[in-house]
Amino acid sequence: MDYVYGPGRNHLFVPGPVNIPEQVTRAMNRNNEDYRSPAIPALTKVLLEDVKKIFKTTSGTPFLIPTTGTGAWESALTNTLSPGDRIVSFLIGQFSLLWIDQQQRLNFNVDVVESDWGQGANLDILASKIGEDKSHTIKAVCIVHNETATGVTNNLATVRKILDHYQHPALFLVDGVSSVCALDFRMDEWGIDVALTGSQKALSLPTGMGIVCASPKALEASKTAKSVRVFFDWNDYLKFYKLGTYWPYTPSIQLLYGLRAALDLIFEEGLDNVIARHGRLAKATRVAVEAWGLKNCTQKEEWFSDTVTAVIVPSYIDSSEIVRRAWKQYNLSLGLGLNKVAGKVFRIGHLGNVNELQLLGCLAGVEMVLKDVGYPVKLGSGVAAASAYLQNSTPLIPSRI
Amino acid sequence: MDYVYGPGRNHLFVPGPVNIPEQVTRAMNRNNEDYRSPAIPALTKVLLEDVKKIFKTTSGTPFLIPTTGTGAWESALTNTLSPGDRIVSFLIGQFSLLWIDQQQRLNFNVDVVESDWGQGANLDILASKIGEDKSHTIKAVCIVHNETATGVTNNLATVRKILDHYQHPALFLVDGVSSVCALDFRMDEWGIDVALTGSQKALSLPTGMGIVCASPKALEASKTAKSVRVFFDWNDYLKFYKLGTYWPYTPSIQLLYGLRAALDLIFEEGLDNVIARHGRLAKATRVAVEAWGLKNCTQKEEWFSDTVTAVIVPSYIDSSEIVRRAWKQYNLSLGLGLNKVAGKVFRIGHLGNVNELQLLGCLAGVEMVLKDVGYPVKLGSGVAAASAYLQNSTPLIPSRI
Amino acid sequence: MDYVYGPGRNHLFVPGPVNIPEQVTRAMNRNNEDYRSPAIPALTKVLLEDVKKIFKTTSGTPFLIPTTGTGAWESALTNTLSPGDRIVSFLIGQFSLLWIDQQQRLNFNVDVVESDWGQGANLDILASKIGEDKSHTIKAVCIVHNETATGVTNNLATVRKILDHYQHPALFLVDGVSSVCALDFRMDEWGIDVALTGSQKALSLPTGMGIVCASPKALEASKTAKSVRVFFDWNDYLKFYKLGTYWPYTPSIQLLYGLRAALDLIFEEGLDNVIARHGRLAKATRVAVEAWGLKNCTQKEEWFSDTVTAVIVPSYIDSSEIVRRAWKQYNLSLGLGLNKVAGKVFRIGHLGNVNELQLLGCLAGVEMVLKDVGYPVKLGSGVAAASAYLQNSTPLIPSRI
Amino acid sequence: MDYVYGPGRNHLFVPGPVNIPEQVTRAMNRNNEDYRSPAIPALTKVLLEDVKKIFKTTSGTPFLIPTTGTGAWESALTNTLSPGDRIVSFLIGQFSLLWIDQQQRLNFNVDVVESDWGQGANLDILASKIGEDKSHTIKAVCIVHNETATGVTNNLATVRKILDHYQHPALFLVDGVSSVCALDFRMDEWGIDVALTGSQKALSLPTGMGIVCASPKALEASKTAKSVRVFFDWNDYLKFYKLGTYWPYTPSIQLLYGLRAALDLIFEEGLDNVIARHGRLAKATRVAVEAWGLKNCTQKEEWFSDTVTAVIVPSYIDSSEIVRRAWKQYNLSLGLGLNKVAGKVFRIGHLGNVNELQLLGCLAGVEMVLKDVGYPVKLGSGVAAASAYLQNSTPLIPSRI
Repeated sequence: MDYVYGPGRNHLFVPGPVNIPEQVTRAMNRNNEDYRSPAIPALTKVLLEDVKKIFKTTSGTPFLIPTTGTGAWESALTNTLSPGDRIVSFLIGQFSLLWIDQQQRLNFNVDVVESDWGQGANLDILASKIGEDKSHTIKAVCIVHNETATGVTNNLATVRKILDHYQHPALFLVDGVSSVCALDFRMDEWGIDVALTGSQKALSLPTGMGIVCASPKALEASKTAKSVRVFFDWNDYLKFYKLGTYWPYTPSIQLLYGLRAALDLIFEEGLDNVIARHGRLAKATRVAVEAWGLKNCTQKEEWFSDTVTAVIVPSYIDSSEIVRRAWKQYNLSLGLGLNKVAGKVFRIGHLGNVNELQLLGCLAGVEMVLKDVGYPVKLGSGVAAASAYLQNSTPLIPSRI
Repeated sequence: MDYVYGPGRNHLFVPGPVNIPEQVTRAMNRNNEDYRSPAIPALTKVLLEDVKKIFKTTSGTPFLIPTTGTGAWESALTNTLSPGDRIVSFLIGQFSLLWIDQQQRLNFNVDVVESDWGQGANLDILASKIGEDKSHTIKAVCIVHNETATGVTNNLATVRKILDHYQHPALFLVDGVSSVCALDFRMDEWGIDVALTGSQKALSLPTGMGIVCASPKALEASKTAKSVRVFFDWNDYLKFYKLGTYWPYTPSIQLLYGLRAALDLIFEEGLDNVIARHGRLAKATRVAVEAWGLKNCTQKEEWFSDTVTAVIVPSYIDSSEIVRRAWKQYNLSLGLGLNKVAGKVFRIGHLGNVNELQLLGCLAGVEMVLKDVGYPVKLGSGVAAASAYLQNSTPLIPSRI
Repeated sequence: MDYVYGPGRNHLFVPGPVNIPEQVTRAMNRNNEDYRSPAIPALTKVLLEDVKKIFKTTSGTPFLIPTTGTGAWESALTNTLSPGDRIVSFLIGQFSLLWIDQQQRLNFNVDVVESDWGQGANLDILASKIGEDKSHTIKAVCIVHNETATGVTNNLATVRKILDHYQHPALFLVDGVSSVCALDFRMDEWGIDVALTGSQKALSLPTGMGIVCASPKALEASKTAKSVRVFFDWNDYLKFYKLGTYWPYTPSIQLLYGLRAALDLIFEEGLDNVIARHGRLAKATRVAVEAWGLKNCTQKEEWFSDTVTAVIVPSYIDSSEIVRRAWKQYNLSLGLGLNKVAGKVFRIGHLGNVNELQLLGCLAGVEMVLKDVGYPVKLGSGVAAASAYLQNSTPLIPSRI
Repeated sequence: MDYVYGPGRNHLFVPGPVNIPEQVTRAMNRNNEDYRSPAIPALTKVLLEDVKKIFKTTSGTPFLIPTTGTGAWESALTNTLSPGDRIVSFLIGQFSLLWIDQQQRLNFNVDVVESDWGQGANLDILASKIGEDKSHTIKAVCIVHNETATGVTNNLATVRKILDHYQHPALFLVDGVSSVCALDFRMDEWGIDVALTGSQKALSLPTGMGIVCASPKALEASKTAKSVRVFFDWNDYLKFYKLGTYWPYTPSIQLLYGLRAALDLIFEEGLDNVIARHGRLAKATRVAVEAWGLKNCTQKEEWFSDTVTAVIVPSYIDSSEIVRRAWKQYNLSLGLGLNKVAGKVFRIGHLGNVNELQLLGCLAGVEMVLKDVGYPVKLGSGVAAASAYLQNSTPLIPSRI
């Protein structure tokens, strides 16, 4: 069962699922208990309050759904929209593609705004569509905050500005799967109507909890949305929220305690410090990529993602070979290039509970693999560049000062 | 966070979530890993083979969905049926009620066959409906194998006989949530088209995995079923099964390893021995209830459940008070009476990885609570009756002989 | 590796090692860390303060030695005495026998006061010896507070009274292995000079930490004691206490965190409540034994142990067969009769983090085994008697009121 | 309790305690059980056989003592020697110093052969002492295989050659604390009479088990050795080995299962591959040190340790500041300089279950810290040198080929 282990630790640098901190593993190391006893509602009540902080919302209503990111998407869409509704959605990579596929299969009328993979969402086109839509046929704008396949972060503030500029009432639905708890995310300030994330990303939990947060406007929409839904229906949750028992069906006890521990870690470090750490590690990664003489798949600096960096390899190299070799020789897990960029990019995930020396170990591994597969990298070059940046920017660990 | 603990172990006798064996907790005590590496597909492949054994099927196709029992229901229905389809469904307690609610909200035309709570599904009515349905308007028969709210087990073999007798092509969909791995369950022999269970029941895992198994006929139906679905769509799974990567979205690594450990335990004990143990513990519970002078909510012996016993309390006692007191004084978690039987019954769950002395401790606790709340039980009477039965029927533990 | 597991939980009723509460297992589920970093000294400092509370001492100095009870004995003796020193020691069962064996092999001049197994230490003889010893040749009185082999608790207050009455300066060394955290234990009030316990007993930790607490007088004695010692030398510890680094050699990080969790649980419940719980469970056990028509190995009520009950079986039964059968059939671990009482008694350990229903499950198991091996017990009789007592005496769990 | 954690993983590069692999943590995540049941003897029996393999002995008898390395030393000495016995011992660093201190306090007549810290044991002096000792007054030669304070590995084969050359019957006692399972170690071939190690070193377990292995000659010596001992007495163990119950006192159940898992990992990787990995990582560390322009505390290549490298810092830097800063800023735990080399060296432990990228992360961290404290290192230089070596020498992980 464990035959795939190499000696020493796995270096997990896929953009999710990410390393689980020992404190969280520990908190989840527990038996089941009766979820109808007073204990679980008491735990849930506080969790629901605290989880709003990671979305930076006070007016939102969160749902902790036993599902994955794909389920969280479905929850966001089906609770707020009706079949046939027109929505604008941006295709910029594999994950936005999958969300659009879901939107279409759920029978929405999807107005797809496509960009090259490596570019951000084309918000100029959004502006014209919104501007032209005097009759408000567009019911929602759906956007992936951070496209995990290409390492592209979209500008949510601008989306809000466009909607506001035209006083357009479309709902603003945001996939924050690989952004919440890692990138600057402001649900209330940016007027996001549904924000969602998954437990296995920057929260650094196991997979299994889709966290969805709905604005009052989204909740209002859910009263009339005609999409068929039961498992994902917010109203079932809201009914039990009112009763104070919180759960329409059995939650994962272990994930609730895990979430408690994960939030504690984030709040102790400080959410803004967590976000700053992500910025620091991402910048270090990018200077390393530059030192290797390789290109970032993300075409403009404004879109650089602080949670994942997709690196373009020379045409004579198959990026999948890099991923395979890293795993086989150095116990290093990197992200594959997906779909359009398969074979062309590999991805370094630098999100969640990770620190400077873990990243430098990863970068050193990437260098060796690059050389192994025939790219003439100067060993140490990326690490040197990243170290130079980190040595100047890494703060002391507050609890150890 | 742990303020609800009393000293010593919690005595968890709700009918799920149940105690997780130490071997399973241990197996799940692990970090995340890259689910796209060769390790997880290799693990999944064997799990999919092995999980068929608990359904007693060789021709079925299992799906390990990151969801709960409610999601597993939705998966079973939406993959095989189209909106408007006529289905026959039996209302005999809270969980069959909830499933019917889901069926209605998913826009099926539900032909509800209701019985008193405490009775099994009325299969005579089924027989007439099926017999009358010459034009095959009934697309599916949906039945909860074991109604957890009342401790009633339905006779699945008879359902099959009825369908066969009339050569009726309706799909046969079975909720095995509180039965699979605990009660006699024969998917192939009984011609079940979709069988499903949840991880937190007799498999003794944490909540978070809905296990659904589809017959070839059900898979065929899924090709034309028009119910809208994405997260729950079997076809997405099947596509990745063919690719050998198995997962359309991120699975819970920990639950997969947990399932491996849970199946190992079941196979080591022997599935039929596991089922026999459930029979033994259930019988012991029933003789205790009789010794207390109390009535089983289940009205006939043919329906007695081997996984949960619902006990009727005298009218001058509120059964919720029993549950509350058991928890507050003896760290004993019993099941509440739900809906129609709220206040009237309490439930003893005796399913999953549990043994004789755990049950006797529970029964001793129930006796004390009964006395505490004013029922004139003779202390020790139920334990004596149960012990007399168990002392004669408990085999040596095979590994210790 | 796990082939000895039966289904369900092991019912561990040997008088140590005892069940580890989930909170403690969880706390120990961690990686190593550098014990020379500031973290471990900070943790140790507080532990050393807190551990004094379980001995009820403010003037004592504790040592957390990576060893077992046997090592803790050796630490107590070699740090305070010199070869040839005359000591009085009481032989009343297997564990006092083993300590005396150690005392003799360490070259002390042991004045053994023997009693029948089942009786307490003969303090009348102690009184005469102390009274006669005008020249103070007796350097120490060594006594096992609770003889685990026979379930006999000695009266430590009387020992102190005798010493005080004759103004005798002998050191008072107490084995509290199966008593500390379970029985009334007052190091300061009773003028105990060295008290010791082991982690795997009432503290409910894994084996591996011997906890020894020395009075100022004992520390003074350690300055001149000529017994050869290095690993067990308190002075090495004291040197590092002064430096604030605390550890002369590598501690078990995991046990330190485990001790923290174990103490937290005890303090939350309240040490006196913990002791009362032990009294309650012990009394329940004794009334069950009486109901079975069996005899307690302990001959007088004043010596009844609240942590372990040794039960005499009829001469036609081999008590080892009871222990074997309990384990093989019911997953119940009972204590064997040791040495002189081998085959004649079996032991029920009721110490540590255990509660009422766990005990009642055990008692129900014992009843079935008694019947299995041919003793004409009335099934349910012991449980009935114990329940009757517990139903009247068990308080609500404070955190759940 | 966890306030010392930084974000991400701790980089533990002290020369013990070392990182515990997840498989071992998992195996130890368990409740207590009755150590007198058949399960623990069965487990112990196989462990005792298997543990001999890590010493490369077939004739040795191992003891798994619940103690630390210091206790293992005491066990080796007191079981084989009598007070006043003349022994030759080598003082080359802090740990050999501590062992000599113990030898003297145990009243042996220690013939100390001192070398500069940074040099190996002076075997020329040993040769003359042995050669001159015609009357065999030397009863034992005691040597630390790997001096953890200076990173010096002694040549055990030469010691054996010297003893053989003069046909000297002295016992050959070896501290293998930081060598066994990491360095080439051949108990039988080198005629070692007592070899010992501690669980928290290359075995990668928690602290708490001293593993001592005695040759037939050592066992013979134990019959007449007059050193006082009880807790550490091999004869108590041997008595229980014969009985097949194995334990004279309570073992740590958890550490036994942990040892099982640790040995499984080592045997799966292959002991010789484990040793080769240590050689590889050590060599990588040394080339990095060289690239930084720093000196190895070990003065000659023949003594270079493959488990720990002590690095000399320029006189204007306090090496303790490096250790402090590494921990405070980068969550990197390095070894302090001890005693004579305090402030002058810092140590990089590269032993146990550790791999290439973990080490490279550590080296990158050291570089940044060196720069932080004012040493003009070229960032990336050490990592570049180490990577160049590792990229050529790291094999594919066998289970992943």
